[in-house]
Order: sequence, then structure tokens, then C-alpha cells
Amino acid sequence: MLLVKHMMLTNVITASPSMTVKETIEILYKKHIGCVISIDENEKCIGIFTERDAIRLVAEDVELDQPLGNVMTKNVITIQEDSSINEIRKTIQIHSIRTLPVVNQENKLVGLLSVRSVLDQFFGLNSQNC
Amino acid sequence: MLLVKHMMLTNVITASPSMTVKETIEILYKKHIGCVISIDENEKCIGIFTERDAIRLVAEDVELDQPLGNVMTKNVITIQEDSSINEIRKTIQIHSIRTLPVVNQENKLVGLLSVRSVLDQFFGLNSQNC
Repeated sequence: MLLVKHMMLTNVITASPSMTVKETIEILYKKHIGCVISIDENEKCIGIFTERDAIRLVAEDVELDQPLGNVMTKNVITIQEDSSINEIRKTIQIHSIRTLPVVNQENKLVGLLSVRSVLDQFFGLNSQNC
Repeated sequence: MLLVKHMMLTNVITASPSMTVKETIEILYKKHIGCVISIDENEKCIGIFTERDAIRLVAEDVELDQPLGNVMTKNVITIQEDSSINEIRKTIQIHSIRTLPVVNQENKLVGLLSVRSVLDQFFGLNSQNC
């Protein structure tokens, strides 16, 4: 059976909450990714910051030299690596989100699942990240 | 047979090349869209500007108060509204792009097809635009 761990991206780019927003946006650009995940010293997800968040901050004239920790989304919805494709679908529908950090049984970050990467597989495009 | 015109989004948000980049980013944010299309007086596509372009400009410290026309992508790859899903797939693969303005036989903009919107249909998510 096709599980999250077979479809997830494993080269997840993480960012420290003490980095500035501007530095984080530079990472999004340089690494060709749509989001970064913040983790704590136990590899637990403590935040997520996406391209869309960056667009919002620029549109709203928010200062980009403040710490990422001030502006990242802190209630991160994650999915277990052994979840099925139906569980993915349900989680995406319930929460209306396009990117799910994947965690193992100890709740540690092990990958990333994004709507974009799933469709990229179908179209044969190169997915760097979310 | 499933054609582009059955899958495309028809509420395409357009932007004038004389708008500033900052105003364009505000549109991306306020309209919840991933790109805007620039058209001329004959409704022909003359440019496209995406979320990703915005990220690049912010990362590279490009002035956001200059006209969109200076920074938008001008060689826009389009697809005909009567193209099949296989032609979509080919065009997306050849050009490695995620968003395709859709044109009719007179080459006028009639819709937008995005990898995101195609998968959103599958997941039952609301797609506003690309």
C-alpha cells in the first residue's frame, strides 16, 4: 500500500526561528522551495513558513528584519509517515493546507509532503521541496 | 474527451504592466492567487508574474516600486483551450512550468490552467486561481 513515507520528500530544509524573515525568504529563493520548517532541539516541528506567508508580509509592509519566530505559523499540522493516501487526502481537506511535515512515531520530522510534490511526480517534474 | 477548457479557471486576474511590483504583490495576496497575467488591448498575453517571481525580487533586494512591465516574464508559454490532457502534460514537461494561460483560436486569453488547480480538483480544495 502506498504510504506517506513512499511519497514524501526527505531533503527538508529547516530554519532557525532566530533567523530574520529576509534571510528565510532568501532560503526559499536560493533552494527553490515553497516553505521551510522550524524544528526544536528534539527535531519536533515548531513552525512553518511558506511562500504565501512571504507574499502576505510584503503586501502588508511587515518589517522583514525581524526574527522568523515572530511571524511563522506555530500550530503546525503534521502527518505520520505510515499514513495512507486516504488519510493524506482527509487531512488536506480538513485543514485546507497544501504542505504537511511528516513525522515518525516519536514525532520527529522525517520528511515533507506537499500537494505540489505529489502532482509533480505525476507530471514528471523535479520537486526540490514543498 | 477532457480538454483544457473543461479544467481551466476562467476568473483570471490580469494586471497592467504600468502597475508597480508592490501593487502586484498586494493583488497576489488580496485575491489569494499565485500569479497575474498581463494582457494588451487585444487581450493577448504579454506577461506573467508569479509568487515565485515575487520571492526572487524580495530575496535579491530589487526595488518594488518600479513598473511590473520591467520585471514580468515576457515570453509567455500558452496553451489552446481545445488541447487534450496529454498535450497539457507534454507542454508542462517540456517547459517545466506550473502555470499556463489558456488562449482561444484568436490567441486571446480565456482562462488559466495550473498544476495546483488540477490537483486541487482532485483533493476537493477551493482553487481561486493559479
